[in-house]
Amino acid sequence: MTAKLYSYFRSSAAYRVRIALGLKGLDWQTVPVHLLQGGGQQHSAGYRATNPQALVPALQLDEGEGAAVLTQSLAIIEYLEETRGGAPLLPPDALGRARVRALAQSIACDLHPLNNLRVLAYLKHTLGVDDEAKNAWYAHWVALGLSALEQSLATSSATGRYCHGDTPGLADCCLVPQVYNARRFNCPLDGYPTIARIVAACDELPAFEAAAPERQPDAA
Amino acid sequence: MTAKLYSYFRSSAAYRVRIALGLKGLDWQTVPVHLLQGGGQQHSAGYRATNPQALVPALQLDEGEGAAVLTQSLAIIEYLEETRGGAPLLPPDALGRARVRALAQSIACDLHPLNNLRVLAYLKHTLGVDDEAKNAWYAHWVALGLSALEQSLATSSATGRYCHGDTPGLADCCLVPQVYNARRFNCPLDGYPTIARIVAACDELPAFEAAAPERQPDAA
Repeated sequence: MTAKLYSYFRSSAAYRVRIALGLKGLDWQTVPVHLLQGGGQQHSAGYRATNPQALVPALQLDEGEGAAVLTQSLAIIEYLEETRGGAPLLPPDALGRARVRALAQSIACDLHPLNNLRVLAYLKHTLGVDDEAKNAWYAHWVALGLSALEQSLATSSATGRYCHGDTPGLADCCLVPQVYNARRFNCPLDGYPTIARIVAACDELPAFEAAAPERQPDAA
Repeated sequence: MTAKLYSYFRSSAAYRVRIALGLKGLDWQTVPVHLLQGGGQQHSAGYRATNPQALVPALQLDEGEGAAVLTQSLAIIEYLEETRGGAPLLPPDALGRARVRALAQSIACDLHPLNNLRVLAYLKHTLGVDDEAKNAWYAHWVALGLSALEQSLATSSATGRYCHGDTPGLADCCLVPQVYNARRFNCPLDGYPTIARIVAACDELPAFEAAAPERQPDAA
């Protein structure tokens, strides 16, 4: 397949899908959607016809799959897992899958959505929050999310070189972009040694390296 | 199985799992975790040992499954789907599953987390936002989320009596609690006729009725 990935280089959610595509050994074509230029290209009528949520990523499959458009990063990755070969991104046992999905969702549902662009913009422009309070908001949800995640990872024998065993998977696809963003916002990460160790292990893999924001065609 | 569901009657995420358990025809025992009493029982050391995220729901499986604790509502429902019989909560085809998961995640990732208790508390107590602005925040994310969802549902031939075809599933498990909460906060829902029609259809089903907040043992 050469699917089209509607992506923004700094979007955490698009970054997750780029990692998953890479781990599966798949090719894709990037369609940049600049979230800041011109008031945000994601709000254009053209992009809203692709994804009514006006969020990235969206993955448009090729004609062989009816050119269907998939949205929501975790749903896209589950689709790739079900339909493509390559490295498995979920473990073979149901309890393991439940663990990996829960780790992924603790980031994708409870951490990232609180700190994404549209929320920070609302805080600033609608609530009139100053930069200091906005940064404190960001750091608060990062600390809350990552400390719980650190505890889950550090106390489970299921954690290996990666979030689950010694194979990178769905949870790692979510963790690495979240930590990338936390670093970009200067959030202290000293308290999360297990997370730091796993991210360092991921960073050695070509799929993670190729998916990094600065490696994207639309990188500033 | 008689699993234990750590639940709060008004929690949207716990409500989703209650619906799924009911649709599968499973029994469960409710362990109430009061999110407001005593500063929030979810923050107790005992509950944090069960779920380091200090969020509900958590589902503790019985001894036959090693008394494992599952967290994150969508991961729990996927586990039930994989391991239990009863009504399927995901469609049989991969594209259909991707659609249903994306609809569910548009609520579980992009709408609900912005409006849950801990976020509203941060707005009020840390940012000093007044009730009017807090309610406007709530209504803003509801309107943004539901209008995109309405468009996705109204324009797709895959939508049936329920979110996907004529069988209730994962997306409906997320939609009904979200609409319940929006009504509780007096958000206008006139603009979402497809959503309203689907919720009305769900409300006729015993599993949805039994899962409603006011029917729970811990209802105020």
